[in-house]
Amino acid sequence: MKIMILNGPNINMLGTREPEIYGSLTLDDIIHDLTEYAKTLGVELVTFQSNVEGEIVTAIQKAKNDCAGIVINPAAYTHTSVAIRDAIAAVGLPCVEVHLSNIHNREEFRKNSLTAPVCIGQIAGFGANSYKLGLKGLFDFIKSA
Amino acid sequence: MKIMILNGPNINMLGTREPEIYGSLTLDDIIHDLTEYAKTLGVELVTFQSNVEGEIVTAIQKAKNDCAGIVINPAAYTHTSVAIRDAIAAVGLPCVEVHLSNIHNREEFRKNSLTAPVCIGQIAGFGANSYKLGLKGLFDFIKSA
Amino acid sequence: MKIMILNGPNINMLGTREPEIYGSLTLDDIIHDLTEYAKTLGVELVTFQSNVEGEIVTAIQKAKNDCAGIVINPAAYTHTSVAIRDAIAAVGLPCVEVHLSNIHNREEFRKNSLTAPVCIGQIAGFGANSYKLGLKGLFDFIKSA
Amino acid sequence: MKIMILNGPNINMLGTREPEIYGSLTLDDIIHDLTEYAKTLGVELVTFQSNVEGEIVTAIQKAKNDCAGIVINPAAYTHTSVAIRDAIAAVGLPCVEVHLSNIHNREEFRKNSLTAPVCIGQIAGFGANSYKLGLKGLFDFIKSA
Amino acid sequence: MKIMILNGPNINMLGTREPEIYGSLTLDDIIHDLTEYAKTLGVELVTFQSNVEGEIVTAIQKAKNDCAGIVINPAAYTHTSVAIRDAIAAVGLPCVEVHLSNIHNREEFRKNSLTAPVCIGQIAGFGANSYKLGLKGLFDFIKSA
Amino acid sequence: MKIMILNGPNINMLGTREPEIYGSLTLDDIIHDLTEYAKTLGVELVTFQSNVEGEIVTAIQKAKNDCAGIVINPAAYTHTSVAIRDAIAAVGLPCVEVHLSNIHNREEFRKNSLTAPVCIGQIAGFGANSYKLGLKGLFDFIKSA
Amino acid sequence: MKIMILNGPNINMLGTREPEIYGSLTLDDIIHDLTEYAKTLGVELVTFQSNVEGEIVTAIQKAKNDCAGIVINPAAYTHTSVAIRDAIAAVGLPCVEVHLSNIHNREEFRKNSLTAPVCIGQIAGFGANSYKLGLKGLFDFIKSA
Amino acid sequence: MKIMILNGPNINMLGTREPEIYGSLTLDDIIHDLTEYAKTLGVELVTFQSNVEGEIVTAIQKAKNDCAGIVINPAAYTHTSVAIRDAIAAVGLPCVEVHLSNIHNREEFRKNSLTAPVCIGQIAGFGANSYKLGLKGLFDFIKSA
Amino acid sequence: MKIMILNGPNINMLGTREPEIYGSLTLDDIIHDLTEYAKTLGVELVTFQSNVEGEIVTAIQKAKNDCAGIVINPAAYTHTSVAIRDAIAAVGLPCVEVHLSNIHNREEFRKNSLTAPVCIGQIAGFGANSYKLGLKGLFDFIKSA
Amino acid sequence: MKIMILNGPNINMLGTREPEIYGSLTLDDIIHDLTEYAKTLGVELVTFQSNVEGEIVTAIQKAKNDCAGIVINPAAYTHTSVAIRDAIAAVGLPCVEVHLSNIHNREEFRKNSLTAPVCIGQIAGFGANSYKLGLKGLFDFIKSA
Amino acid sequence: MKIMILNGPNINMLGTREPEIYGSLTLDDIIHDLTEYAKTLGVELVTFQSNVEGEIVTAIQKAKNDCAGIVINPAAYTHTSVAIRDAIAAVGLPCVEVHLSNIHNREEFRKNSLTAPVCIGQIAGFGANSYKLGLKGLFDFIKSA
Amino acid sequence: MKIMILNGPNINMLGTREPEIYGSLTLDDIIHDLTEYAKTLGVELVTFQSNVEGEIVTAIQKAKNDCAGIVINPAAYTHTSVAIRDAIAAVGLPCVEVHLSNIHNREEFRKNSLTAPVCIGQIAGFGANSYKLGLKGLFDFIKSA
Repeated sequence: MKIMILNGPNINMLGTREPEIYGSLTLDDIIHDLTEYAKTLGVELVTFQSNVEGEIVTAIQKAKNDCAGIVINPAAYTHTSVAIRDAIAAVGLPCVEVHLSNIHNREEFRKNSLTAPVCIGQIAGFGANSYKLGLKGLFDFIKSA
Repeated sequence: MKIMILNGPNINMLGTREPEIYGSLTLDDIIHDLTEYAKTLGVELVTFQSNVEGEIVTAIQKAKNDCAGIVINPAAYTHTSVAIRDAIAAVGLPCVEVHLSNIHNREEFRKNSLTAPVCIGQIAGFGANSYKLGLKGLFDFIKSA
Repeated sequence: MKIMILNGPNINMLGTREPEIYGSLTLDDIIHDLTEYAKTLGVELVTFQSNVEGEIVTAIQKAKNDCAGIVINPAAYTHTSVAIRDAIAAVGLPCVEVHLSNIHNREEFRKNSLTAPVCIGQIAGFGANSYKLGLKGLFDFIKSA
Repeated sequence: MKIMILNGPNINMLGTREPEIYGSLTLDDIIHDLTEYAKTLGVELVTFQSNVEGEIVTAIQKAKNDCAGIVINPAAYTHTSVAIRDAIAAVGLPCVEVHLSNIHNREEFRKNSLTAPVCIGQIAGFGANSYKLGLKGLFDFIKSA
Repeated sequence: MKIMILNGPNINMLGTREPEIYGSLTLDDIIHDLTEYAKTLGVELVTFQSNVEGEIVTAIQKAKNDCAGIVINPAAYTHTSVAIRDAIAAVGLPCVEVHLSNIHNREEFRKNSLTAPVCIGQIAGFGANSYKLGLKGLFDFIKSA
Repeated sequence: MKIMILNGPNINMLGTREPEIYGSLTLDDIIHDLTEYAKTLGVELVTFQSNVEGEIVTAIQKAKNDCAGIVINPAAYTHTSVAIRDAIAAVGLPCVEVHLSNIHNREEFRKNSLTAPVCIGQIAGFGANSYKLGLKGLFDFIKSA
Repeated sequence: MKIMILNGPNINMLGTREPEIYGSLTLDDIIHDLTEYAKTLGVELVTFQSNVEGEIVTAIQKAKNDCAGIVINPAAYTHTSVAIRDAIAAVGLPCVEVHLSNIHNREEFRKNSLTAPVCIGQIAGFGANSYKLGLKGLFDFIKSA
Repeated sequence: MKIMILNGPNINMLGTREPEIYGSLTLDDIIHDLTEYAKTLGVELVTFQSNVEGEIVTAIQKAKNDCAGIVINPAAYTHTSVAIRDAIAAVGLPCVEVHLSNIHNREEFRKNSLTAPVCIGQIAGFGANSYKLGLKGLFDFIKSA
Repeated sequence: MKIMILNGPNINMLGTREPEIYGSLTLDDIIHDLTEYAKTLGVELVTFQSNVEGEIVTAIQKAKNDCAGIVINPAAYTHTSVAIRDAIAAVGLPCVEVHLSNIHNREEFRKNSLTAPVCIGQIAGFGANSYKLGLKGLFDFIKSA
Repeated sequence: MKIMILNGPNINMLGTREPEIYGSLTLDDIIHDLTEYAKTLGVELVTFQSNVEGEIVTAIQKAKNDCAGIVINPAAYTHTSVAIRDAIAAVGLPCVEVHLSNIHNREEFRKNSLTAPVCIGQIAGFGANSYKLGLKGLFDFIKSA
Repeated sequence: MKIMILNGPNINMLGTREPEIYGSLTLDDIIHDLTEYAKTLGVELVTFQSNVEGEIVTAIQKAKNDCAGIVINPAAYTHTSVAIRDAIAAVGLPCVEVHLSNIHNREEFRKNSLTAPVCIGQIAGFGANSYKLGLKGLFDFIKSA
Repeated sequence: MKIMILNGPNINMLGTREPEIYGSLTLDDIIHDLTEYAKTLGVELVTFQSNVEGEIVTAIQKAKNDCAGIVINPAAYTHTSVAIRDAIAAVGLPCVEVHLSNIHNREEFRKNSLTAPVCIGQIAGFGANSYKLGLKGLFDFIKSA
C-alpha cells in the first residue's frame, strides 16, 4: 500500500521556523521517522512538499494513479485554498488533514479549514506526532473500508 | 480573430471528477467541440489550463499580445483570487466568466465571484454549453463594440 | 415547443431608462429580435411583463400548462422575492435567469439572487444578447434532457 | 363568529407543488376540511388566497369590518413583507401565523418571520393540520379575551 | 406645475391605525390640507395610494408624462423594495421621500431606506406636516434647478 | 399510547413568574388540564420537569423505552442547548416544541431555536393552550404516520 | 420664541468646501437668509457653530435656559457622537436634525445617525433649504404641542 | 499512569444513535477496546460519562488528584460550554479533544470548539478510532514532556 | 436580613486555578472574610456553589423564600446561560453580578453577560474584593428601596 | 493619598437629566457625599468634569503628577473614545470605571466599553453609590499593591 | 514651502508612554529632528498638537492659509473621527497620515483608518522615522504635482 | 548590505496597467531608479517579481541566506496570502510592505493586509516613491537595530 505525504508552504523551513510554535525537527527528520513507522504498517510513502498551491493540486491529482490515500498538511493553504479542497473532492481518495500546531488556539483566521470538510478527519496540535497519528488513522480507515 | 479559452484548477480532471456535478465530458471533449463551434464564427481558439494561480495570471497578461478577448473558467480561483481579477483589469481585454455548474446553488462561499466584476458578464450552470454560450456572448460583444 | 419570456419590474421602461446601464433598445425591440431568433430554433415564445411580483408568480404557475421552460429576468425582484423563487420551484419547469447588466459589479445588494438557486443557471451582463444566450441555453438543456 | 383564512403566494399550487415538503392535499381540500372543523366550533370562515402582497394587505384591512380574527399563512411573504406586518398591526385583530412545513429546519432565510412578532403566535410543521391547530388556538384566544 | 403625491401600503388606514405612532388624521384629511397648501404654491396635485408594490412602480412610470416631481411615502416598501427604487431612478424625476413617524427611532429594520439614495432627500418624523415640508422642498428644488 | 410532557428550567415557577408574560396558571394547573385533555384522546401522559439540561437529555433518552412521542418546552435551553437537540435526534421519536409566550416578539436571542429543526414543528404564543395544541398536533401526526 | 441653530464641525468651511456636495453658500449666507425667514415666523435665532464635540454638548445644555427648541446639523458628529445624543435627551427640548446633503446616498458610515433617534425627525438633502424646512417643522411642532 | 476518558452528552446512546453518523459500536464496546489498547501502553483508564455539563466539570476537577491527562469527547458541549473550557484550564492537565464524526463537515455551529483552544490538540472524524489516536497522542505528549 | 452568595462553576477551584488571573485566595477564604464583613452590616449570608447550571437555577428559585437579595458570580455561565437569566427575572429579587477578574479585557466571548441585564448592576475586576463591593452595593440598594 | 474623580459629558446635568434613569442627585450632591466618604478613608479628592473628550484626556495626563489613581465615569465617551483609553494606558495609573446606570441593559451600543479593558475593573448600576464602591475598590487596590 | 506637522491625543506623552510600543523619544525630540531634516529640504514646519478633536479640525482648516500640505498623526482619532476626515477633504491640501507603531498588528479596532482614505497615503510602524518618511513623501508629491 | 526587492502579481504590467491608478512608470524604471538610490545608501539590491504566490514564498525563504531585509509589494496577495505571511514570519528578517496606490481608499477588500502584521510597517499611496521610502525606512531600521 502506497500513501502520499503532502506538505504545503513553509513546511520546508521546519527546524528553523518559529521553533516555539513548530518544534525543532526538520521536515527531513519528520519524513525519516514517518518512513520508519510506515514500514511497521507495511506502507510505502510517497512524499512531496511545495510552496505553490497549484503544484499541490497537481500532486493530489497524480496520487490517484498509485496511492491508496493522502496525509496532507496544507499549512497556510488550509485557510485559503478552494483549489486544494476541490482537488481532494475530485480524486475521491481518503485524505487526512494534519497540523503540527493546535490551529484552534492561534489567530482567528486559522480556525477555519476549507479542506477539512472533504477529508475523513483532522488531527492538530501534536507536533511531528500529528503525522504518525494521521497515518495510523488513515491506514486503519483504508483497512476497514 | 483569436480568443483565449482559459481554464483553472481541476478542470483537467473533468469526466472523472464528481460527474453528478460536472458532467462526464473531459476537458479535451469540451475544447474539441468548442473549436468546431468557433470555426463557424470564424474564430481561432488559444487554449490553456493550469492548476497554478500565477500561471493563469501570466496567461492573461500574454493574451494581450494576440487575442481579442478571453473566456475564462477560473474554477476554485473564482472565489479567492484577487490576482486574477487584477490581471483581467490590467490587460483591459473583454472577458467572459463561465462555470459548468450553477455556482449560485452550491456552498455559500461559491456564490461570490472576485473576478466577475471585471468581466463583461457571467454564465453559470449550463455544463459544457456554458463555454459555447460564453464564446458567443463574447464574440457578439467584440463585433458590436 | 413553447417557451415563456418573463420580464419583471421596470423592464417596460427600457430604452429610456438609464441607457448607460441598460442600453437603448426597448423591450419591444428585444422581444421582436428574440422572436425572430426563436423561430430559427423552432420555438414559439409566450411573453409577459409585469411590475407586480404576484402577477409574475401567477404567470410562472400558468406556464406549467403549455410551456417547456422559462427565460426570466426578474429585475429588482431577483434580490427580494422569495415568492418568485417558490413559484419556480413549485412548477418544476427548467428556468434560466437573465440580466441585461452585469449585476456582479453594481451595488452590493444586487449581487445576491434569491431566484438563481432554483434555476438551471444565470446569464448576466450581455445586454439584450443575454436573452438570446439564455434562450439558447434553455433550448439545448430541454433538448438534451 | 367569522374568521378569515388567508393564504399567500403559491399556496394555490398545493397538491402538485413539491409534495415531499408540502404534502399532497390541495388548497381546496384543506379549506373544505377546515370549514367542516370550523362548523364544530360555531365559526364561519372567510377565505382568500393571493399571490400579490398588496392584495393580502387589502384583505387584512377588510377583515376589520366583519372578522373576529385571522389565520394567515403568509408563505414566502413571511420572510420579506413589512407591508403585511404593518397591516396586521394596523387592524389590531388577533392573528395566528401558520406554516405547513417546519420553517425552522429549511433554508436559513426561512427561519426569520417578519409577521410573527405582531401575531399571537406561530404554528409550523404540521402540514394541513397546522391550519386546524391555528384556528383552534385563535378561537380559544378570542373566547378567553 | 403638477406634482404626484404617492402613498404606499396601509397609509389608507391612517386615522384608525396605531394613532399613537401615526396620528389621528385620515389620508383624506392630509390630502385635503396638502391640496390647499399646494394651491398657494401654484401647484396641482396628482394623488395615488396603493397597497401593491407593482402598482406604485407603474404610477411612478406614468408620472413621467405630466408631473414635474414626486413626493412619495413608500411606507413599508421603503425598507424592502428595490423595484420602487429602480422605478424612481428609471424615470429620472426629482423625488422626495417622506415619513409620518421618525423611522430612525423605531425597529432596526426601519432605519434603512432602499429608496432614499435615489431621491433628493428624506423628511421623517413631522406627522402630516412631513408632506407639506416635502412638497415645499421639492417645489423649491424644481424652481432652482 | 404514552406521550412524555417535558418542561425545562423555571417552568416550575409558573404562576408567580412574570405573569404578564407567562400567565397565572401553575405548572400543576397546566399538567392537570392537559391530563384531562389527553384522556379524551386516549393518551397517557408521562411528565417531567428539570432545571438541569443534562437531566432533560436523560429524560429524552428514557422516553425511547415506552413513549410514542414528546411534547417539550425546553424554555431557556431552546436557545442554548445542542445537547437536547442531539438527544432528540438520537432517540428518533416524533417531538413537538411548545412555548407559552410568542418567542418571536421578545429579545433577539429568543428567536432562534436550536431544537426546533429536529422536531416536527413548533407552537408558540398560546399560553397554556400551546401544550394542548402541541399534544393534539403530535397525536394526529403519530396516528397518521 | 427663541430657537437655537446649532452647527457642527467644518460647517464653517461652507462655500469653499467641496461645493459639488455642499453648495456654494457660506454659513453666514445661510444664517442670514434663515434669520430673515425666522422673522416671518416671529422667531428669534440663537446661532452657534463649533468644531469641538464637547462645546456642542455645552451649547445644547445652555439652550435649555432660553430656547424653545433646536435645529441642529451635527455634521460629522451625527455618526460618532453619543455625547451629543445624550445631551439632546438630557435637556428634553424638541430638536430637528438637518443635513445639507442626502446622507443616505453617500458613504455607508454616513447612513447611520446616532442623534436622529432622540430628535423629532430628520431632514436631509435640500442644501441650505434643509435649515428652513427644519425650522418650519420645528416651529409647527412647538405651536401644536 | 492513569488517564481519564471523559464522554459528554448522548455518547451513552452510541450504537443506536444515528449510526450513519456515529457508527454501530456502543460506548461499552469502545471503552472495552480502548482499555485493551491502554494496557499495551501500560496505562490504566478512568472512565466517566455524563449528560450533565456540571458533572463533567466536576470530573475534570477530580482528575487532578490521580490522572496524568484527559481524553475528552465533550460532544454537544464542545460548542456551548465555557464551563468545561474553564475547568480544563483550571486543572492544568494535558487534555486531548476527540470526536467520532468529522465536525468540520456538519452543521456550521459544530465547526467551532470552545474547548479545543485549551487542549493540546483535537482529533476528529475517525469513529471509535479517534479515541485510540487521542490516547496515543496524549501518552506520547506526557512521555516527552 | 439574609443575602445569598451564589458561585458558579470552577469557583471551587480558586487558589489553585490560574492564580495570575484569579488570585491565591480559596473560596473558603473569600466566604470567611465576606461573612465577617456581612456581620458589620447586620447581614447573614447563605452560601452555595455548584458546577451545575440547573442547580444554580434551583438555588435562585429557593432564595425567594428567605433571602432579600443575591450576590452572584455566575462564572462561565455568565456568557452562556439564558436559564440563570430567566431564574433571576422569575424570582424578582435584587441581584448583583460580580466577577473576580476584569472580564472586559479578556477573550471576546467573556465581554457579553446574559445575566447582567436582569441584575441591578455588575462589578468586575477587584479580585475577592468584588464580593465585598457587591454585597455593600446590594445592601445599600435594599435599604434605600 | 490623592485620587482624581473624573466625570464625562452631561454628568453636569444630573438631577434634571432623565431622573428615571440617572436619579435625582446633582453632581454637586454626589461629589459632596463622596468627599465626606473619602475623608473616612484618609483620601483627598481632585474633581473634574468636562463635556470635551480632549480635556478629559488632558486631565488624565495631569493626574500622573499628584494622584495615586482615578475613578472615572466616561459617560458617553465610554463607547466612542479611543483617546481616553490611550490616555489611561499612557499614564499607567490604576483606574476604575463607574456608571450610574446599568449599561448592560440599555441600548446595544452602551454594552461595549472601550475604556474598561485598560482599567482595573468596572462598576455599573448602583446610581451615586457606584462612585463610593469604585473609590473603595480603587483604595483597597492601591493599598494592597 | 511651509508644511504643517499635526499631532493628535496623547502624542504629548511620548517618551514616558508605553515605551515598548512608542519608543523613548519625546515629541520635542521628534519635532527637533524633523525640523533639522526639513531644513535640508528647504521646508519650514508649522507644528501643533492637541488632545481635542475639534482643535485638530480647526488647525487643519487654518493650514489652508499658508501651508502646502500636512503630515498628520491623528493617533486615537484615526479610528473614530469623521470630523477630521471631513476637515482634510474640505481644505483640499495634500495630507500624509503617519503612525509611530504598526497599527496593523495591534488591536482589531486600530486597523481601520477613517482618515487614510482622504490622504495621499499612510506610513506606519517606523517609530519617529515615520514622520521623516512622511515628510519626504509629501514633499516629493508636492514637487511633482 | 543586500536588500531584496520583491514584487507580486501584475507588477510586471506597470506602465500599461490602469495608469490612472498605478502611474506610467514600468517596473524596470522603478527598479532602475531604486538601484541608483540604494547606491547612495551603500545598499545592493536583489530583485524578484513573480505572479506565483508560492514562488514569492520561496524567494522570501532564500532571502534568509544573504539579505538583511526585504521590501515587498505583495500586490493582490496582500489580501489573500497566509502563505506569504507565514514565510515572512518564518525567516525572521525585517520586512517593509509597500503599495503604489493608497489601498485604504479603494475596494473594501483591499483595506485588509494579511502580511502587514508581520512586517515592521506599511507604506502606501506614494506611487513609485513608496519603494524609496520603504527602502529608507528599512535601511534606518536595520542600522538602528
